[in-house]
Amino acid sequence: MQTSPSFNWPVQVYYEDTDAGGVVYHSKYLNFMERARTEWLRANGFGQKQLSDDKGLVFAVTAMDVKFLAPAHLDDKLFVSVKLVKVGRASLNLEQEIIRESDNRVLIRATAKVAMLNDQFKPTRIPTSLLTVLKV
Amino acid sequence: MQTSPSFNWPVQVYYEDTDAGGVVYHSKYLNFMERARTEWLRANGFGQKQLSDDKGLVFAVTAMDVKFLAPAHLDDKLFVSVKLVKVGRASLNLEQEIIRESDNRVLIRATAKVAMLNDQFKPTRIPTSLLTVLKV
Amino acid sequence: MQTSPSFNWPVQVYYEDTDAGGVVYHSKYLNFMERARTEWLRANGFGQKQLSDDKGLVFAVTAMDVKFLAPAHLDDKLFVSVKLVKVGRASLNLEQEIIRESDNRVLIRATAKVAMLNDQFKPTRIPTSLLTVLKV
Amino acid sequence: MQTSPSFNWPVQVYYEDTDAGGVVYHSKYLNFMERARTEWLRANGFGQKQLSDDKGLVFAVTAMDVKFLAPAHLDDKLFVSVKLVKVGRASLNLEQEIIRESDNRVLIRATAKVAMLNDQFKPTRIPTSLLTVLKV
Repeated sequence: MQTSPSFNWPVQVYYEDTDAGGVVYHSKYLNFMERARTEWLRANGFGQKQLSDDKGLVFAVTAMDVKFLAPAHLDDKLFVSVKLVKVGRASLNLEQEIIRESDNRVLIRATAKVAMLNDQFKPTRIPTSLLTVLKV
Repeated sequence: MQTSPSFNWPVQVYYEDTDAGGVVYHSKYLNFMERARTEWLRANGFGQKQLSDDKGLVFAVTAMDVKFLAPAHLDDKLFVSVKLVKVGRASLNLEQEIIRESDNRVLIRATAKVAMLNDQFKPTRIPTSLLTVLKV
Repeated sequence: MQTSPSFNWPVQVYYEDTDAGGVVYHSKYLNFMERARTEWLRANGFGQKQLSDDKGLVFAVTAMDVKFLAPAHLDDKLFVSVKLVKVGRASLNLEQEIIRESDNRVLIRATAKVAMLNDQFKPTRIPTSLLTVLKV
Repeated sequence: MQTSPSFNWPVQVYYEDTDAGGVVYHSKYLNFMERARTEWLRANGFGQKQLSDDKGLVFAVTAMDVKFLAPAHLDDKLFVSVKLVKVGRASLNLEQEIIRESDNRVLIRATAKVAMLNDQFKPTRIPTSLLTVLKV
């Protein structure tokens, strides 16, 4: 497998995302990164509700390492990237960045490990149909 | 039934609750009011997870009317009240206020209607065991 | 002034918006409605950060009346409408709905009153430049 | 300096914290950890609003490494620990855990680096008065 090209998803910063420090609240960047992972899966043909309803499968984040390099502000337009760096039998390793459109500055650099869980919340194999798409 | 005395629940304001305007983000007051309703039910002997797991019942908010009178700030300590004003067969009407401890100012005045739903999300009778407690 | 046509803004439902009941957490609909108001202002040429930075002005919600008619679920695509129904000197009255794309069902029906506040958080006149645009 | 004993702060899980997977949404644990850091500072005599208003100082998270070991559920009571492991001139390194009261299970293990920023969002020395308290 070669490293996949990165997927990008736009995110607009609203009042709900900011805090009294005048910047985006730190944990909200994790929400933005999860939106991008969701849309990356959807772009690959896999909706999370469908995975859950049809196969009882959910992706759960098991580890994140996040560098908060610079803050985003109200009304900023951001791009959140998703780059698949390792495919395991029951987990995926991803690299993600959040970049501000106006000045191309990298605000966040992160790695995330997500595990495939069955309806008992036990680690389980990623469906072949999904692996096939991701490994192309 | 006589109007019940009001129940009060303390809430501390953290950065996560505020926005770039320097005050608590408006929808967060609804979260605070839901925490108070949850603790009011718990104080009456009913946990929401237990209601859901054991009987397949959940309370869902069907209507809220909220007046945002004055803003709360970071580090404010608030009290959220719950006052039961009407008990229907499948719903409850509540009045709620949010008061700041430091100056006793009423920041929020609201009414909420919550409906009892079964596991098909259909309105259903409130269990007699709960009604009995609430009507005392 | 005639009633303005309504503005529509798409919102995608992510895991972050849902709760353990399997549906969108009730206060999140207020976030969705605020996103639509923000984009409606932006579409009329007014960014909220710019209003705040340049003129020290912010819009604050002073009242909301919300009917929660039916729940949204994970992966639903929603449309949030904004319809201006009254323009005061220091406030706006809006009607908003949230509609699910897949079945065109109205999930939320709400009214919101937003007030223009100066940097002392006191009600103040809406700038003529903004009024002019809104009253067209 | 010897390693400080850990500080513990209780957190109750509400519907707002959970997602459609039936567990606490992953980024919410970061909110819980920030609440504990805030209360740890407050217990040491330093309110964040006071630091910001009086001295123009804010603590900002610059890095987090989080292991999500097991999920919390609705109505769980959690304890969030804060252990200071390194004091720099302009930053603090902390270790944090989230433990469920009912079974004493460690759900989250994390390290956080927080930097002291001035009102220009530039790294700046931690006030001596705060350092003195933390180094005891």
